[in-house]
Amino acid sequence: MGLNPRLAPHMAKMQSNMIFSLLPKLSELGFISFAPGAPDAAVFPFDDILGITRDLLGSDPGGLLQYGVTEGYPPARDAMAKLISGYGLAPKADEIIVTTGGQQAIELLCKMFIEPGDVALVESPTYSAALQILKSLRAQVIPIESDSQGIIPEDLEEKIKIFTPKIVYIVPTFKNPSGATISYERRSAVAEITGRLNVLLIEDDPYRDLRYEGDHLPTIKSFDRSGNIVFLTSTSKILCPGLRVAAAYLPEALIPYMTIAKQAADMHSATLPQAIAGEYIRRGLLGGHISKLCSVYKARRDLMLACISESFPKSIDVAAPMGGLFIWCVCPDGTNTTDLLEQALERKVAYIPGEQFFADGRGKNTFRLNFTSAAQGDISKGIEILGQVLRNNV
Amino acid sequence: MGLNPRLAPHMAKMQSNMIFSLLPKLSELGFISFAPGAPDAAVFPFDDILGITRDLLGSDPGGLLQYGVTEGYPPARDAMAKLISGYGLAPKADEIIVTTGGQQAIELLCKMFIEPGDVALVESPTYSAALQILKSLRAQVIPIESDSQGIIPEDLEEKIKIFTPKIVYIVPTFKNPSGATISYERRSAVAEITGRLNVLLIEDDPYRDLRYEGDHLPTIKSFDRSGNIVFLTSTSKILCPGLRVAAAYLPEALIPYMTIAKQAADMHSATLPQAIAGEYIRRGLLGGHISKLCSVYKARRDLMLACISESFPKSIDVAAPMGGLFIWCVCPDGTNTTDLLEQALERKVAYIPGEQFFADGRGKNTFRLNFTSAAQGDISKGIEILGQVLRNNV
Repeated sequence: MGLNPRLAPHMAKMQSNMIFSLLPKLSELGFISFAPGAPDAAVFPFDDILGITRDLLGSDPGGLLQYGVTEGYPPARDAMAKLISGYGLAPKADEIIVTTGGQQAIELLCKMFIEPGDVALVESPTYSAALQILKSLRAQVIPIESDSQGIIPEDLEEKIKIFTPKIVYIVPTFKNPSGATISYERRSAVAEITGRLNVLLIEDDPYRDLRYEGDHLPTIKSFDRSGNIVFLTSTSKILCPGLRVAAAYLPEALIPYMTIAKQAADMHSATLPQAIAGEYIRRGLLGGHISKLCSVYKARRDLMLACISESFPKSIDVAAPMGGLFIWCVCPDGTNTTDLLEQALERKVAYIPGEQFFADGRGKNTFRLNFTSAAQGDISKGIEILGQVLRNNV
Repeated sequence: MGLNPRLAPHMAKMQSNMIFSLLPKLSELGFISFAPGAPDAAVFPFDDILGITRDLLGSDPGGLLQYGVTEGYPPARDAMAKLISGYGLAPKADEIIVTTGGQQAIELLCKMFIEPGDVALVESPTYSAALQILKSLRAQVIPIESDSQGIIPEDLEEKIKIFTPKIVYIVPTFKNPSGATISYERRSAVAEITGRLNVLLIEDDPYRDLRYEGDHLPTIKSFDRSGNIVFLTSTSKILCPGLRVAAAYLPEALIPYMTIAKQAADMHSATLPQAIAGEYIRRGLLGGHISKLCSVYKARRDLMLACISESFPKSIDVAAPMGGLFIWCVCPDGTNTTDLLEQALERKVAYIPGEQFFADGRGKNTFRLNFTSAAQGDISKGIEILGQVLRNNV
C-alpha cells in the first residue's frame, strides 16, 4: 500500500531539480564543480554581516523575533525599494513584497495566475526552476524564439495572440543559463507588446549588478506604461543566498493578492535575515561590495574563457557573457551532454547539461558552466579536463 | 483593463486571513488585543539568542550564508529530530524537513496530495490558515464531528469511506482555535483508522509543550503502524515565531516529494534562523524556557478565566483549556460575534470571531481569545470591557 499512489498526479511525475541536488554534494567530495548557480562564499562580507546582526539584535530584538508582517519587515521593504531605485525605477516601499528568495516570488506569482492548462511563455533556454514551478502547476509552457539580441518581439506578439498566455517570464540580463542579455530596443518592445496585449510580464533580474563590461541597460519595467510588469530582484547573488532575501516590485493592484498567496505559503519570511540584508543596503555597503565581486568574478570569467579557448574543440560554440555567473556552451548537433557528464564526473569535474533549461526537450547538446564559485586553480584544471572529455567525444 | 481579471479564479475569491491582518496593527494603536495567535515577545530568550547568533556567525559563516540544502540545515535537522524525540517518537534526522513555519509544511503537504475537487477532512473548528490553503487548492473540505474527547472515530471512519479524502488534518493538542485536546483513546483510534484506510494524516502539534495541567498525551504518530502520519512541530510558540523554524517528520517514502515541493517553493529556508533555533535546542535550553513560559502563560490563563467568570454572561459557554494559547467562547445561537466585534473595537478591545475556523459557515456565535500576548493588567481591563459588550448584546 503506502501513500505514494495517492499523491497528486503532477507530483508523481515531478523530478528533483538536478542543479540543486548536485549542489551540496560535489565540492565536499573533491570534485571541481562548475555546476552551482552560486556566488563564492569566500567573498561574502562576513564582518559587516556579523556587526550588523549584533547591532540589530541589540536594538529591536522583539521586532525581529515576534510574528512579522506578511509583506515584509518594514525596514527591509524600504531597503529593497532603495535597491530597486538604483535600477532607474521608483518603487514605494508598499509596492514591495519581500520573499524567501526569488524562487518564492516566481512561485507565488505563477500560483496567482496559472490554472491547469493555462499558457506561460518563456525564453528558450530559461531558468529551470521556473520551468519546474510551471510544470507543477500544469501550465502549458511555450518557448519564445530568440536571436543574439534576445527574444524576438514579433514572435512574442504572435505567440501572445495565438496562445493568450497568463504569464510571460523573462530573465533579461545575463540570464541563467546562457548569460545572454536582451538589447535596449527589445526591452522597450517587450514592454510595449505585453502592455498593449495585457499580459503579466515577470521580469526576473537578479544578475544585473554583476556586469563586467558595457553599460547598464534600463529594466523592461522602466518602459512599463500599463502596470503589467512585476520586477524581481534578489540579494542572493550580490550579498549572500543563505539569507534568502529577495523582493518583488508589483503593480499596486496585485499587492493584496500576492500578500494573500504569501500568507498561505509561509505567513512571512524569517525576519532576522530580512533585517540583515536590509540594514546592509541601508548602510550603503552594497555598492562597494558589488564592485569587489565584479572584479573577482570578471577575472574568473576571463580565465575560464581563456582556458576554454585553449582546450575546447572549435566546433563548440561558447557564449562569452558580459556579466552574471554563467558561460553557455553549444556542442554540435547529436552530442549528448548528459552522457558526457558521466565521463566528466568520472574525472571529478561537474557541469549542468542544458536540456533541463528548455521547455520542449531541446538543448541536449548544450551545457552550462559556472565561473564564480570555483577557485582560479580549479578553473584551469577543470576546464583542461573537460576539454579532454569533449575532444574525445565531440 | 488591468491584470486583475486575469488572476486565477480561486485567487479572485480569496480573502486575506483576518487574524493575520489584524495582528500587526492593533496593539500599536492602543488596543487591548486578544486577537493574535502569538506568544509574548517579552519572554523571548533574547540574551541566549544573541549569544548563539554571535557564536554561529563566528564559527561557520560560510555555511550559514551560502546556498543550503532544501531539506534543512543539517544541524537544524538534527535538533528538530531531538525536539521530536522528546515527544516519544524516534525520528532520524533524514526523516525531517525543516520548513518556514508550520504554515509552509501544511501548504507543501496539501499541494503534494490535493487536486481541485479532492476532499480533505478537518476538525470543526480548525486552524483557519489550513482552511485557506485547502480552499486555494480548491479542495472540498468536510468537517469531522467532535465531542468533549475530540473527533469522533466513527464519524471519521464513515467520512473516509464516503468521501475517500486525500488528507485528514488534525491539531490534536490545545488546538487553535478552541484549545481542545483529543483523548488518549481517540488518538489511538484515529491512527488505526487512517492507517487501515490508507489516508494521509497531518498531525499538527505545535502547542503540546505549553501544558499547564495534566499529563502529556502520546502523539497520534506514536500509534502509527502504517507510515501514513506526518507529524508537524514548530519553534514558533515555544521559542519565537520570527525565526520561522518548524519541522515535518515524514514517512520516508514522502521525503523526496516534499523536498521537490519545497525546492519549487523557496529552494530552502533561510539558514541563520534554522541554525539559531537548532543550536538553542542542541544546547538544551528549551526545556527550561518552556517551564518559564508555562508558568507565565498559566497565570494569564487563570486570570483571564477568573475575569471571564466575573464579567461574561452565564449563557456563554467558555472552554477552559489545559494548555496552549486560546480560550474559546460559544455564545447562544443567534449571536453574531462579527457584529459584536465592531462594538468591541469601538471600545479598543479585539478578539477573533470564530466563523473563519469553520469549513461550513457555522460558528457565527463563537469567538477566540488569546491569553498569552496581553499583559495581566490588559487582561483584566479588556475582559471587563468585553463582558460589558456581551452583557448588552447576548
